[in-house]
Amino acid sequence: MTAGPLPASPVGLVGLGLIGGSLGLDLQRRGVAVRALVHRPQTAERARQRGLAQEVSTDPAVLADCALVVLALPLDRLLEPDPALLAALPRQAVVTDVGSVKQPVLHRWEPLHPRFVASHPMAGTAQAGVEAGQVDLFQGCPWVATPGPGTDPEALAAVQMLAEAVGARWLCCEAGEHDRAVALISHLPVLASAALLQTADRASRPEACGSPQLAALVRALASSGFADTTRVGGGNPALGTLMARCNRSSLQAALGAYRGQLEQLEALLEQADWPALEAELERCRQLRPAFL
Amino acid sequence: MTAGPLPASPVGLVGLGLIGGSLGLDLQRRGVAVRALVHRPQTAERARQRGLAQEVSTDPAVLADCALVVLALPLDRLLEPDPALLAALPRQAVVTDVGSVKQPVLHRWEPLHPRFVASHPMAGTAQAGVEAGQVDLFQGCPWVATPGPGTDPEALAAVQMLAEAVGARWLCCEAGEHDRAVALISHLPVLASAALLQTADRASRPEACGSPQLAALVRALASSGFADTTRVGGGNPALGTLMARCNRSSLQAALGAYRGQLEQLEALLEQADWPALEAELERCRQLRPAFL
Repeated sequence: MTAGPLPASPVGLVGLGLIGGSLGLDLQRRGVAVRALVHRPQTAERARQRGLAQEVSTDPAVLADCALVVLALPLDRLLEPDPALLAALPRQAVVTDVGSVKQPVLHRWEPLHPRFVASHPMAGTAQAGVEAGQVDLFQGCPWVATPGPGTDPEALAAVQMLAEAVGARWLCCEAGEHDRAVALISHLPVLASAALLQTADRASRPEACGSPQLAALVRALASSGFADTTRVGGGNPALGTLMARCNRSSLQAALGAYRGQLEQLEALLEQADWPALEAELERCRQLRPAFL
Repeated sequence: MTAGPLPASPVGLVGLGLIGGSLGLDLQRRGVAVRALVHRPQTAERARQRGLAQEVSTDPAVLADCALVVLALPLDRLLEPDPALLAALPRQAVVTDVGSVKQPVLHRWEPLHPRFVASHPMAGTAQAGVEAGQVDLFQGCPWVATPGPGTDPEALAAVQMLAEAVGARWLCCEAGEHDRAVALISHLPVLASAALLQTADRASRPEACGSPQLAALVRALASSGFADTTRVGGGNPALGTLMARCNRSSLQAALGAYRGQLEQLEALLEQADWPALEAELERCRQLRPAFL
């Protein structure tokens, strides 16, 4: 929990999954009034039991008096917003989102609301849904805003106050740069990691390798290194697909660059150029700390 | 610490790095006499201070009375063994190694010693050297033996006793199968992970992307997912290179299969076939638990 100024109250949360639920818990602990809109009555009931907001409703009217509304929705629902939600968003409220791809969100929402700010809190766990929200999720994590030329500076400052109130590290950059960056450090790793699982599975099948035992052996011998490297590839398939769909061109560019790097490593093996391979791996060892 | 029968005593350790040092600590705790041969006097001194063996020497004669000798050496020194070491190995002793590639080791050592058993304890940390050894390193980890047609069954049983005395999970398989398996679940992940670091670095340079900020942005935004996925790629370069050199053909086959999987994922992006991508990611999610 950090100190610092509090965001305008009440805050409205649209969706109470991992991000929305965690925001609700943290903001209430800081004394901010929180109202939430959810889709299903069962979710509302459970959210009330968990105390994720002071008021939880399936009626968009719950947002009526909110000074700041956070659209904590999956990318697809953000890009094709419910007309009832749009109608219920107060025109004077600051509105932000939490989507992991920013260019299409900014493009879609700038014409929809005068005080929209595209943003992306980069906090995640493997959890999702109404049970996932937890206190202090954002502590020390980046919260990136990607203002466009039309973004209201006061609205941007209000979202910064929200981010900092829950302990996040505030950053601003251009939406396209954000999307290229997350393609390289988040979306590409999901596919690279998934392909490792697929390869260990498929290349060890009897019809692929001629051995009836290899499939069981790879499963018995896989250790912490394999577990770490495949964690993001074994994650939420719907989320991974949405990221790929919404960030397609940046991800395609990243995949192309990745394939090029792999081909260079393959060439070193082909040439048995061990000093060059060791130099590349040494460079990777030196590179990694800057990404931690 | 597990119970169970103790290996023949004294045990000789050649090398006191992560594996040798950890074995020395665990065996002594179980009451087994341990003698160690190391290369440098400074290492011997530090090993004595750490109590990694009762007797530590740079003179191969220290192995004279050992009933079981563990060659805890890097692969290159294992494949080109010191003639003084070879001359000092008692002919009646059981000899095993800890190398992470087994076919070349078995091939090299079967003619060198009548009671050689090729084996691979699959325990690792990022540490190396005389400071790395730790108690209980092997607890619950696989210890794989790869006997050949000429392997002495009694010698194999002695190594099994050693492995189980330090809490490892004993497995036997054919050397070539071992090498194909570790290529898929250990050596390929190192290169796939290294290539992610290289891609995040190179594709974000101003000359590659046209942006002066992207390099700093990828470093600021990389989070736990990137950290996990790149851990093994940022590891020991000498070790990674040795693995690639000693397991070259299996690693080349694994890389080829991996490239094929990536190309399939790229094709799904190209075709914008989101249901098929989601089905692949769902399959990965289902696959992963069997590898943990």
